Amino acid sequence: MFAPVYFDHNASTPTDPAVLEAMLPYLSAQFGNASSRHEYGRAARRAIDEARSQVAAAVGAHASEVVFTSGGSEANNLLIKGAAACLKPGLLAVSAIEHPCVIKPAEQLCKRGWMLEKLAVDADGRVDVGHFAEVMARKPKIVSVILANNETGVLQDVESLADCARMAGAWFHTDAVQAVGKLAVDFRRLNAAGVHALTLSAHKIGGPKGAAALVLDKRVELEPLIAGGGHERGLRSGTENVASIVGFGVACTLATERRVRLAQRLLELRGQLEAGLLGLGATLFGQAAERLPNTVYFSFPELDGETLVGHLDRAGYAVASGAACSSANPEPSHVLRAMGVDPELARGAVRVSLGRGNSKEQVAGFLNTLQATIAGLQRLSAMSA
Amino acid sequence: MFAPVYFDHNASTPTDPAVLEAMLPYLSAQFGNASSRHEYGRAARRAIDEARSQVAAAVGAHASEVVFTSGGSEANNLLIKGAAACLKPGLLAVSAIEHPCVIKPAEQLCKRGWMLEKLAVDADGRVDVGHFAEVMARKPKIVSVILANNETGVLQDVESLADCARMAGAWFHTDAVQAVGKLAVDFRRLNAAGVHALTLSAHKIGGPKGAAALVLDKRVELEPLIAGGGHERGLRSGTENVASIVGFGVACTLATERRVRLAQRLLELRGQLEAGLLGLGATLFGQAAERLPNTVYFSFPELDGETLVGHLDRAGYAVASGAACSSANPEPSHVLRAMGVDPELARGAVRVSLGRGNSKEQVAGFLNTLQATIAGLQRLSAMSA
Ligand SMILES: Cc1ncc(COP(=O)(O)O)c(C=O)c1O
Ligand SMILES: Cc1ncc(COP(=O)(O)O)c(C=O)c1O
Repeated sequence: MFAPVYFDHNASTPTDPAVLEAMLPYLSAQFGNASSRHEYGRAARRAIDEARSQVAAAVGAHASEVVFTSGGSEANNLLIKGAAACLKPGLLAVSAIEHPCVIKPAEQLCKRGWMLEKLAVDADGRVDVGHFAEVMARKPKIVSVILANNETGVLQDVESLADCARMAGAWFHTDAVQAVGKLAVDFRRLNAAGVHALTLSAHKIGGPKGAAALVLDKRVELEPLIAGGGHERGLRSGTENVASIVGFGVACTLATERRVRLAQRLLELRGQLEAGLLGLGATLFGQAAERLPNTVYFSFPELDGETLVGHLDRAGYAVASGAACSSANPEPSHVLRAMGVDPELARGAVRVSLGRGNSKEQVAGFLNTLQATIAGLQRLSAMSA
Repeated sequence: MFAPVYFDHNASTPTDPAVLEAMLPYLSAQFGNASSRHEYGRAARRAIDEARSQVAAAVGAHASEVVFTSGGSEANNLLIKGAAACLKPGLLAVSAIEHPCVIKPAEQLCKRGWMLEKLAVDADGRVDVGHFAEVMARKPKIVSVILANNETGVLQDVESLADCARMAGAWFHTDAVQAVGKLAVDFRRLNAAGVHALTLSAHKIGGPKGAAALVLDKRVELEPLIAGGGHERGLRSGTENVASIVGFGVACTLATERRVRLAQRLLELRGQLEAGLLGLGATLFGQAAERLPNTVYFSFPELDGETLVGHLDRAGYAVASGAACSSANPEPSHVLRAMGVDPELARGAVRVSLGRGNSKEQVAGFLNTLQATIAGLQRLSAMSA
């Protein structure tokens, strides 16, 4: 089977073989419902308990602070809408570069009497500290700032933002879906700085799809999105997806063990890739900001990102244009818009997100293919001009 | 490994080996995000499309009417809260014997200005037609009646109830989680009778945990519970759990192929079990009603259900007391309460739910073990009296 080179790890990661191995018993002999009070049920419950400890350990939290959900989108919606449902409507502030699964629930709340303020970012995609302070002075009740952006990889100084939000008395949430496994993420420390909730997702760190977590300071009151049997301390009902949760736990442990070395390797590959891209005349987004070690977001003037991604796909390289999570939605990236990027340049945006399986040879091969593809496309557009 | 006899199929079912086999590629080489526009992504999208057709075919729906969710609880919450969010608050009617994941979201709506009416049932657990008609005359906007109850197995005549609800102009939903695979469920026919939405869940029919569906008449407007990237026609955002969805599709196909023969076999086992239980002096709940072919819900006067379940577990039989889905919640079953069952008798409730792997020998062995267990417990309680 022909396997294209996978350069889209921010969209999803290969499931680690050790993760699948750990999951298999829960997809066969250990099929019990974790709420059942017999041996099949208890085996499932024990497996979930262990995974909860593994997830907590990976982000420096207590197991009792971990609320399992079906995905990062659910965890973000649970925090935003669940917290809002327990408060009187007021001001809600989220950065302009949040993932749609933070922005959309925030927008839904506007129909329920909430006011939404989108926090501005600078040209490199960092939250504008002046605007942030201004908005905090208006005492928002909920604030959400993404730890590492999925498109640009740009990091936010969430600790100092949370510290600044503290005087407002807001609940502060950070979407750490892209940060975990690539950076040290320590909920105890973030919590001490004023962060009350954090999202992570299994399939972004070598785990399976179908499991994620909201790590939650217990002082935050939440109304469940999914109410029912009272699972997850009443915050998320529904028969637990035992196999995915088990895989999530193992993925967290592996991610912790591998993080430092992996980040080092990714940074080298990123350096190689960026040098090549700059040599080819690309514009790199967020270049002046601290970024994830695996993410490169670039554009070639006058080339359409979608078209380039299609050509690269046929040439055996799987990369993304704009955010991969939004289904069929050809609008230019809201992240680049918020950064004030010229719409023409934004239309050309292509994201390469590296991962564990990638090598120098793959990056070198990609740069060669890219050069040839660009030359071909530029010839074409010169001809049609 | 010692494997107890599994008699708790209404809580969850063994994952069929063919289901696991179909899932495996999506837990290894085919790890793509279905929204990605490269070969990994397209492979995932094709797999989801196929599963959508398989699920639709199993319940006589169009593929475009299938909305995938992470579980039955999510699907039920999506329908109840999602539909309510698009309507002016009014009257909501759900049967008193719904699963908690219908009752709880309905109760949550009471905080949002909705009035909740619980539809009464008779002593055998069938919806009281007189009360139903009275409530319909008050023009509820949303009605939900479970097709087959998870505790008693009692069936409702959803078609004629929907027909009666039609004059009210209500959206009519039925939770078919326990019905699919055991009875013919035909959404086209139900839809013609006035049913607008139906829930089914993979792990109750030999599929994996982590996938379920709301089958939805497109005239019903829903606000998504999980908003974000706009997946599932904007009704349910979040990276799709490809492997579980694929397994769900295969489980649906198998369930359809096997249904008639399976139901016949289960009915024979149920007959054997009920005859034995009556011989031992048990009270059977819902005995006069039409019921699922696999479910037997019984009680012995003066024996505690929890205690009996614990003894049977140690003797190698996995059965349930009350609803298995509600976590640690030792209150007597709300279903039996709604049926007017004496609280003492309700405390003794034990559910046996049979499935594909069960045999006559297992039922016979269970009856012997039960007889010995009861005798032992009765001796004990006689001694302590
Ligand atoms: C930053 C960020 N947050 C949230 C999500 C949503 O996670 P999921 O797709 O698992 O629901 C994603 C990716 O999809 C993401 O990149
Ligand atoms: C009738 C019924 N509805 C809904 C559910 C909820 O499904 P899930 O646990 O998959 O969320 C269950 C079982 O748990 C059920 O038996």
